[in-house]
Amino acid sequence: MLYYEGEFDTQEIDLVCVEEGYRCLVSEHAGGLVGYSDLPQSSLVLCDEITSSLLTETALVETIAVVGIGGSTLGIKAIDRLLRSTTPHAKKIVYFENSDPVSIAEETAQLNYEKTLFIVISKSGGTVETLSIFKHLIATFNIPLQDSKQIIIVSDDGSILSQFADHYSIKRFVIPSNVGGRFSVLSAVGVVPLLLAGFDVAAILRGAHSFGERFWDRQEDHLLHKAAFYVANAKNHPINVLFSYSDRFEEFGKWVVQLWGESLGKKNQEGERVGLTPISLIGSVDQHSFLQLIIEGPLNKTVTFMSVKHSNETLMIPEMNLPFLEKSDFVNGKSFDTLINAQCHATMQSVAQSGVSVDEIIWESVDEVSVGEMILYYELLTSASGALLEIDTYNQPGVELGKQILQTYFNH
Amino acid sequence: MLYYEGEFDTQEIDLVCVEEGYRCLVSEHAGGLVGYSDLPQSSLVLCDEITSSLLTETALVETIAVVGIGGSTLGIKAIDRLLRSTTPHAKKIVYFENSDPVSIAEETAQLNYEKTLFIVISKSGGTVETLSIFKHLIATFNIPLQDSKQIIIVSDDGSILSQFADHYSIKRFVIPSNVGGRFSVLSAVGVVPLLLAGFDVAAILRGAHSFGERFWDRQEDHLLHKAAFYVANAKNHPINVLFSYSDRFEEFGKWVVQLWGESLGKKNQEGERVGLTPISLIGSVDQHSFLQLIIEGPLNKTVTFMSVKHSNETLMIPEMNLPFLEKSDFVNGKSFDTLINAQCHATMQSVAQSGVSVDEIIWESVDEVSVGEMILYYELLTSASGALLEIDTYNQPGVELGKQILQTYFNH
Repeated sequence: MLYYEGEFDTQEIDLVCVEEGYRCLVSEHAGGLVGYSDLPQSSLVLCDEITSSLLTETALVETIAVVGIGGSTLGIKAIDRLLRSTTPHAKKIVYFENSDPVSIAEETAQLNYEKTLFIVISKSGGTVETLSIFKHLIATFNIPLQDSKQIIIVSDDGSILSQFADHYSIKRFVIPSNVGGRFSVLSAVGVVPLLLAGFDVAAILRGAHSFGERFWDRQEDHLLHKAAFYVANAKNHPINVLFSYSDRFEEFGKWVVQLWGESLGKKNQEGERVGLTPISLIGSVDQHSFLQLIIEGPLNKTVTFMSVKHSNETLMIPEMNLPFLEKSDFVNGKSFDTLINAQCHATMQSVAQSGVSVDEIIWESVDEVSVGEMILYYELLTSASGALLEIDTYNQPGVELGKQILQTYFNH
Repeated sequence: MLYYEGEFDTQEIDLVCVEEGYRCLVSEHAGGLVGYSDLPQSSLVLCDEITSSLLTETALVETIAVVGIGGSTLGIKAIDRLLRSTTPHAKKIVYFENSDPVSIAEETAQLNYEKTLFIVISKSGGTVETLSIFKHLIATFNIPLQDSKQIIIVSDDGSILSQFADHYSIKRFVIPSNVGGRFSVLSAVGVVPLLLAGFDVAAILRGAHSFGERFWDRQEDHLLHKAAFYVANAKNHPINVLFSYSDRFEEFGKWVVQLWGESLGKKNQEGERVGLTPISLIGSVDQHSFLQLIIEGPLNKTVTFMSVKHSNETLMIPEMNLPFLEKSDFVNGKSFDTLINAQCHATMQSVAQSGVSVDEIIWESVDEVSVGEMILYYELLTSASGALLEIDTYNQPGVELGKQILQTYFNH
């Protein structure tokens, strides 16, 4: 269960924009152009398929090594971190992402090859980091490819990586062609590794599905209000901060940053550069780092505060009076949950008083259903904002030039 | 050894500002108002003191538990991460920072109390997260306080935490009063835990010292040019991105974010809100996340690219031709170092072509001397920028209101 509260009331919001946002999303999704909101239902089939076959086949696996980068890992890492502490028996997932030799060597050295399942994920199938690391792993462990039971491929149907998988009769899963990489966490991209690791993926999908149903039924219009507010204020408030009060949101924040930044940073139909810059912070830690800038720096930011009412961890601050440290006794006998939530709300109040626009998302607890809800919430928020910015939310033409330049460095 | 290259040539830069920046820094430091640039020398004495006494006393310690937050941990974590892979025998350091009960419980459960040294760090001595966690650890492990050899305190002289330490005859170290928390990594804050863990702190201090000497001797004026450029363009380019091409820069990036954000986000002498918003990215990973926004989004950012020429890890991409995956063969037989550096430069070229102002810092390798240099580089860059923004770089008045509101939540 999630609660949303914000300043995006009808006085500030252009209701024409709200309707326009809704209309665009309906048209995108009904036309089949954009497929991510179908995933909560279609991936249930995938869950059944995996549960009835692969789950027993991979029972002896101890570690899942995900080889991928960007949209192929950020969502998995977000869910892994959010639900790890309440899913203690889940298998370990390690991530081979960056072309950083130090990380690759360290992670490789820690693998117990015999007990590892490699899941190679690339939507296009041609990601240079992913394929280079995959080759390194094949060479290091001398992995046999033909009919390999230790490799799973997740990619677009017909991609070069999918063709490679078919050539060697390696098990593969398809990312629907109308689902972009950064919107793909509820497709095979997230479902395959998370389900095989032991997470309750079906419950995540149910949460996402129910949020989607409510949204299409106009019961979650606050999301459209927020998008309309952000877009109307994009010039004055070009930076959107997500301030999450739990360490478990670290990777979720990175997932939001990709979704928001890469979807909305675009040239619009007039060729004008538009976009909103996402920043993810963790409270209370970043009260001691970034808060000063929010409170007294330029008024160019909005802040969304995210907190967890009940963390499932009942740790208390002891009733302990230490000489000279009486100053901190005001929290004695309270739970750390109470402290961190009070810090969240005190900070939100001080930020709002400084003139910064804030809103709030409260998680009753971090459970599978809420995780699913929140994923669809941010995906729909991004789509609505993109529609109102009049851009193509789903492409990323700006990153191509760097890839071309990279090739020229090696072609001589 | 570090190399700096940027577009901050004399054509764009107001040389009056450069001189003004230098003059302000000389005056701040010579007057004793600001003390961080004395640390590279004064902390050498501290190193000797610790080496000749505590180092043998703590020889059996296996884990150092740092209890602190913000400026009391960010710098330690940055150095720990940067030098960990080349200091394999260093003792484990764990960090108790956030008031997040899930993290605190997990880290507590992993501690082997008998073999743990607790270093409690708070400049003011009254940080509520730090004191609450300290109480929790005392209660959990029933730590005897009188004459404790398992606790070390690092705090301002005369702070309540220092008085507490003296009351129980607990060993303590002092943070000089003219060194702010976020500028304190080369004081006892960083020296004590890092030296006891086994890092070569003296070499870090030597690197910082030599950079400082060169700066005061006007051999590192590029730093002043950069500050002048940032400040002159603060309205057009309010966001400064640090794009570091190695996973080892993750925590260093967070240290920079605090230093930059908290120092420069201020009301100036006219009461106007000024400041520059820092963002830390990791390449190549964030090419798949944030790059699109930099290239096609609003021209409101500068980008500093940071890379490591030789990572000390010679991992190669195998000469392997896989059917259908020939597209990635152009990097076959190259090192991952070559790949990640080529990615850095290709991305920098594409970002520059898109009209964004870029500069570059190249580390010959990640060694102690370079780490020290880089720390002083960013501290002086921050001071110079603050001087030109005509603010008090060293305070953080904006965070007080939230602390007061927090108290009121508990005072009834």
